[in-house]
This record gives sequence, C-alpha cells and structure tokens, in this order.
Amino acid sequence: MRIALGLEYNGAAFCGWQSQASGCGVQDRVESALNSFLAAGPGRISVSCAGRTDTGVHAALQVVHFDCNVDRDEIAWVRGVNTFLPPSIRVLWSRRVSDEFHARFAARSRSYRYLLLTDNADAAIMHRQAGWFHLPLDLVSMQAAAAMLLGEHDFSAFRAAECQAKSPVKTMHEASITSNGQLFTFSFRANAFLHHMIRNIVGGLVYVGAGRHSPADFRRIFESRDRSLAAPTFSPDGLYLANIEYDEKFGLPAARIRLPY
Amino acid sequence: MRIALGLEYNGAAFCGWQSQASGCGVQDRVESALNSFLAAGPGRISVSCAGRTDTGVHAALQVVHFDCNVDRDEIAWVRGVNTFLPPSIRVLWSRRVSDEFHARFAARSRSYRYLLLTDNADAAIMHRQAGWFHLPLDLVSMQAAAAMLLGEHDFSAFRAAECQAKSPVKTMHEASITSNGQLFTFSFRANAFLHHMIRNIVGGLVYVGAGRHSPADFRRIFESRDRSLAAPTFSPDGLYLANIEYDEKFGLPAARIRLPY
Repeated sequence: MRIALGLEYNGAAFCGWQSQASGCGVQDRVESALNSFLAAGPGRISVSCAGRTDTGVHAALQVVHFDCNVDRDEIAWVRGVNTFLPPSIRVLWSRRVSDEFHARFAARSRSYRYLLLTDNADAAIMHRQAGWFHLPLDLVSMQAAAAMLLGEHDFSAFRAAECQAKSPVKTMHEASITSNGQLFTFSFRANAFLHHMIRNIVGGLVYVGAGRHSPADFRRIFESRDRSLAAPTFSPDGLYLANIEYDEKFGLPAARIRLPY
Repeated sequence: MRIALGLEYNGAAFCGWQSQASGCGVQDRVESALNSFLAAGPGRISVSCAGRTDTGVHAALQVVHFDCNVDRDEIAWVRGVNTFLPPSIRVLWSRRVSDEFHARFAARSRSYRYLLLTDNADAAIMHRQAGWFHLPLDLVSMQAAAAMLLGEHDFSAFRAAECQAKSPVKTMHEASITSNGQLFTFSFRANAFLHHMIRNIVGGLVYVGAGRHSPADFRRIFESRDRSLAAPTFSPDGLYLANIEYDEKFGLPAARIRLPY
C-alpha cells in the first residue's frame, strides 16, 4: 500500500532534503525513522518528496510518499515516527493514498514563502529562519517588479547553472509581497520551480527595493534570460517550502497553520 | 554617561538572563561583548536589565542600561557590540539617557507574549520557540478566564515559591488571547510580574481551554491565592518578553516589529 506523510522541518542543521552518503540530508533522517518505526532493515523504505529543498531551506509542509506492507492508523504514524526523528523534523499527518498518487508528479503546484528582516541588526530569535538586509526596502517598487513574474515565462535569468529541469518555462500563479514593521514576506506559487529560482528572484527584488535596479531594469534582465545580468542568489535562511497543492481526489488533509508567518 | 541598549535574544541556549558563575547567562555574554567592544578589562561594565528572564525564555525586547565614559554613535554601538555577541543575541538600538533613567526602576510596565502550538506534533521549525499542547483548546472559555486577571489583584496563586517580590499585588493592564489555525497567542501587560507568573497563568488557562477547569474553577483558584490548587507551570519555550514601556521623556525608540508574531 502507498502512504503519504506531511512533514515540517527546520533546514538549518541539514544539507538539504536529498539523501547524502554522510547522512546529512533530511531524507536520511526520515527514512531512518520510518525504518526504525517499522522495524525494517536499513534501506528498506525509501521516500519520494514533492520538492527537494536546498541546504538551510525549511519546509512548513513537505509531502512524501512510500510503499510498505504495514498499515497503522494516523496517530500511530505521527507519534510513532516522531519518536525516532530529531526535534527539528516532525511528521504532521499521514494518509493511505491510491497507487496513482506520487508526491512529486501528482503535485499541481508548489508554494514557497521568503521571510526577510530589514534592520541594522540581523535576526537573533529567528537566526537562520529569516533572511536579512541591512537597509530599508521600497515595497511598492518590489511589488511592481514581482507582478512581472506572473503567468508563463522563461525563468532562465533566475536559474542556477546546475539546474536539471527539462525546461526553464514555468507558470507563476502568485508573486506577492507584504510588509509589517521591519519584516517583508514574499509569497510565490508556481506549477514548478527551477533550481535556486526563488532565492534568485528574491535577490533581484531586493536590488529593486534598495534602488540598485529599477522595475524596468528588472524586466529587462528577466526578459534577457541571462543569469549573469541578474542580482546574486539570496540567502537560504528565510526560504520556506510552504505548501504542495494536489487534486482533491487524493484526499490529503487541508494545510494546517502551525507557524505565525 | 548613561547608555541604554535594546536587545533581542533567543533564550533557548542560555540559563536565563542573570549572570552565573558558569557564564551561561545572557547577561554574561552581553557584558563580555561590551567590555570587548570598549576594550575595558573584564568586569568593568555591568548592566542592569528591565526584567530578568528565566532559562529558555526569549526577549523580543529587553532593555538594559550601564554607565561608561565612552561616547559612540548609535550605529557603532549596534554593529560594534554585535560583532562580539553570539548570533542568538543582538543589540537593536542604543540611546544616551539621563542619569535618572534606570532600566528596571523607570519601567512603567512590561509586556509578555506566549506562543502556543496545539497539534498532534510539536513545533519543528519553532522548536523551543513555542509551547505545545497535544489537544485542541477552547478559545472562548480561555478568554473568559483571562479577563478575570485584569486590574489590581493578589497574584499569589500564580507565584513561584522562590519569588522575591515584596508584594504579590500587581496591576494587569492587558490579558488577551488570539488564535490562528493551530496557534494561540497570549498577550499580557502589567506594571510588574511575579516569578513564573505568566507560565503559571498560561498553565491555568490551558487547563480551562482543555476543559479540566471551568472559568469558575479558575476564578476560585485565583481568589484562593493558593499556588497548590492551581495548574502546573507551563514550559518556558513559548514565552517572550515583548516590550518595556517607559515615560516618553527618556526618548527611547519606538518598538520595532522584527518578529512575525
């Protein structure tokens, strides 16, 4: 049978989602906890995720699936697997799903959020949970630039050199920015994202907010599809995989609000 | 001259504010950084704080003052001292203040916030930054109980045995609770607080929200002034010193919003 799990993790202590020989990936810890919980031999269970996150990137919701022969009720999966996980990774829910469900290929869209602190001092309480810029940023010009990202575009200007995606063309459904005091929250939803795409976009928007690029410069760079013209990649600290959207037929639970942002 | 500093810290790694022989107090790190910044000998600068926080308790804003012979501009204090602090402690601002200013005795009131997650799984991203209760809580009955705390009362039912305050009578100006998804935020403002008072109040309110005590039980316990009848002390993880209110004549900066909660 196929099981889907919803996960939350703080990525600060991990070398990203993906399994590594050194065991520093979030995936390594999740698979190890599942194998311990199911008393399976090492390597028995392997999971597929909805969206691989980079080193230091967090997930308010990551979805994984795997196949196994053991049925447990939801609360047993949640409480049981969590006893084998470090406190910075938690299983939030489980669902038995049909075999046509696939955490990655069944996802219709992904949502990411970027939290940015602009102040003289960087974040202490939220150290490694928020990006930081030392100068004030202009919200309106950043919003004007972000609106240019909506719709279907070639995002090559915001694509990392190592990106393995087949196509640089993605469809952006949401690209919004709000501010509260010294904090800015960037929200993005797209069918899929290129490698480093959001950190590169945030870097570009910060250049606009700081007045180093105008919104027209941002458009020119975006349309050039030339990564070398764009602003540098921004820090992973404030980046959160926020949600994965699937067809209702799979019966996954609605997103829970477990973070105040 | 007298200098006031605004500080933010994540208390998870410290044994509370107060200086300890082992050096594990936030105060130890702040005084050490000030002495390094001013190139003074060890123990030269000692600071007084507005409100001592317990082990594991955070400060969105703590205010301290000290006397020294060296004048620096604000950005030099902020950037300079921060280079000598661990990333979980930050100086946010500095002000030269009159000699009648005292971080503790000049404070008119203190504000605290408690962030509580109610879900099957405890916080991963906000590990040690939010309290946790594994069952849903009833907001309305907790709000009814919290309203009983407003005004001048004897808070002995919520006072730790070790409390050194002269009087258990304090005046509560705000005691409000809001909820968003799985999260509850408790906000309190009073002229002063007894030792463990907020963690004991939150413990009592959680008992009400979970249906173990009615709001009438809560009132009876509060009026009994008997700590032994009340609910247990709640975890320090979700507790934040949020603000310190002073007379405008001291010219301290307005509170900055650096946290999304």
